[in-house]
Amino acid sequence: MISKSKIKLIKSLEIKKFRDETGLFVAEGTKLVLDLFPVFNCTLLAATPGWLLENKNVKAVEVIEVEPDELNKISNQKSPQGVLAVFEKPDYTWNAEELNCKLVLALDDVQDPGNLGTILRIADWFGITDVFCSRHSADAYNPKTVQATMGALARVRVHVVDLEEFLALVDGSLPVYGTFMDGEAIYDKSLSLNGIIVMGNEGNGISAGIEKLVTQRLLIPNYPKGQATSESLNVGVATALVCAEFRRRVQV
Amino acid sequence: MISKSKIKLIKSLEIKKFRDETGLFVAEGTKLVLDLFPVFNCTLLAATPGWLLENKNVKAVEVIEVEPDELNKISNQKSPQGVLAVFEKPDYTWNAEELNCKLVLALDDVQDPGNLGTILRIADWFGITDVFCSRHSADAYNPKTVQATMGALARVRVHVVDLEEFLALVDGSLPVYGTFMDGEAIYDKSLSLNGIIVMGNEGNGISAGIEKLVTQRLLIPNYPKGQATSESLNVGVATALVCAEFRRRVQV
Repeated sequence: MISKSKIKLIKSLEIKKFRDETGLFVAEGTKLVLDLFPVFNCTLLAATPGWLLENKNVKAVEVIEVEPDELNKISNQKSPQGVLAVFEKPDYTWNAEELNCKLVLALDDVQDPGNLGTILRIADWFGITDVFCSRHSADAYNPKTVQATMGALARVRVHVVDLEEFLALVDGSLPVYGTFMDGEAIYDKSLSLNGIIVMGNEGNGISAGIEKLVTQRLLIPNYPKGQATSESLNVGVATALVCAEFRRRVQV
Repeated sequence: MISKSKIKLIKSLEIKKFRDETGLFVAEGTKLVLDLFPVFNCTLLAATPGWLLENKNVKAVEVIEVEPDELNKISNQKSPQGVLAVFEKPDYTWNAEELNCKLVLALDDVQDPGNLGTILRIADWFGITDVFCSRHSADAYNPKTVQATMGALARVRVHVVDLEEFLALVDGSLPVYGTFMDGEAIYDKSLSLNGIIVMGNEGNGISAGIEKLVTQRLLIPNYPKGQATSESLNVGVATALVCAEFRRRVQV
């Protein structure tokens, strides 16, 4: 049985303001919860008797046994999968020197929580361990984002930064890549092992202030070249294509 | 002013059964509607006075002027953009001979309408003009799919087929590609200019019956190779990465 105050806390974490105030976020489902367990501190775990029986090793500050209909009430999912966990948000640091030998992603106001989750999953797939989000990007701890990451949050560190300041900091010392309709085909460009790949907002692409700081203008070519097609690719798809090409170069 | 029977018709088209019975589907928003206009027969156009004033050249069997609050009622969108159109579904044919000189996609029970829309948009971007969907795939004329295509439906032909029969038909004459965890890195494989790329279901991948008919087993490598990451990529992202590599080969 779960108390009303706990239900209220869990539901409040759907809203960014309360996630920021409490420093907590919610994850649901066996795979995701078990992926996050070794990495984040779990302050509250609500699970069905069946789930707890199958996952005896799981330790949390507080474990509450809930019946499936109780879980339905607190869950943000259409079909809850037996477990909901409240975790502490991590507090990552980074330094400019560390950046010199890494390929990282920077997101210029990616708005959709699902897109952000997909991008973090892609970063994870391609071994990109740090993603820098502008202050107006979707929140990485939004329940929709958390679920869409499929556990990538356990391996990819998300930093929220003033993106112009962040890029100005590395000005000249690291290549800054961005995709533009008038860029040069990514397959014809030399790509470095380190640097920053900027991906833009869903509707407007990369903003003017950030565009000035991009040093390498890339294009993802369509096929056949120049034929009228869909105007653009979804930001998640574009991120995947760019990251894949960077990683292909060092593998082939 | 729009009649109750028209409202009922439009709302019914959210359901596949009624789309199949009537042979009609709904599209919303200026860009999408204008993209589909030259290709599909529009039987009904509901638009605000402002939209009609700005788009005087648009011709439909029936044009109904609606106030924004009326449009809100019939729309399937959170923020309707001034226009909703009902189109006749196309009736495409295809023949095996034509396939010999094409690269096409085959979808083995892709379930999510949004994913299907994303895949059609990707097909469009990469000049893949024909997509063959298994009978249990999402419906290309589901409103969520139509909106997610961003107009690609005007350029990509969707065929619904018995996928095993379809692949058996080309058995031996065309390469059939599929992605598997134990496949060979796509960057190390020779890829043909024609053939069929099979993409599998979101949860289960390519089904056993279809897997038998795949002749080329591909892998999208993660990075660094073999490091534990997210278990898989979203089907839309995987489709994009595979199609991009086929098209990159003939461009570089």
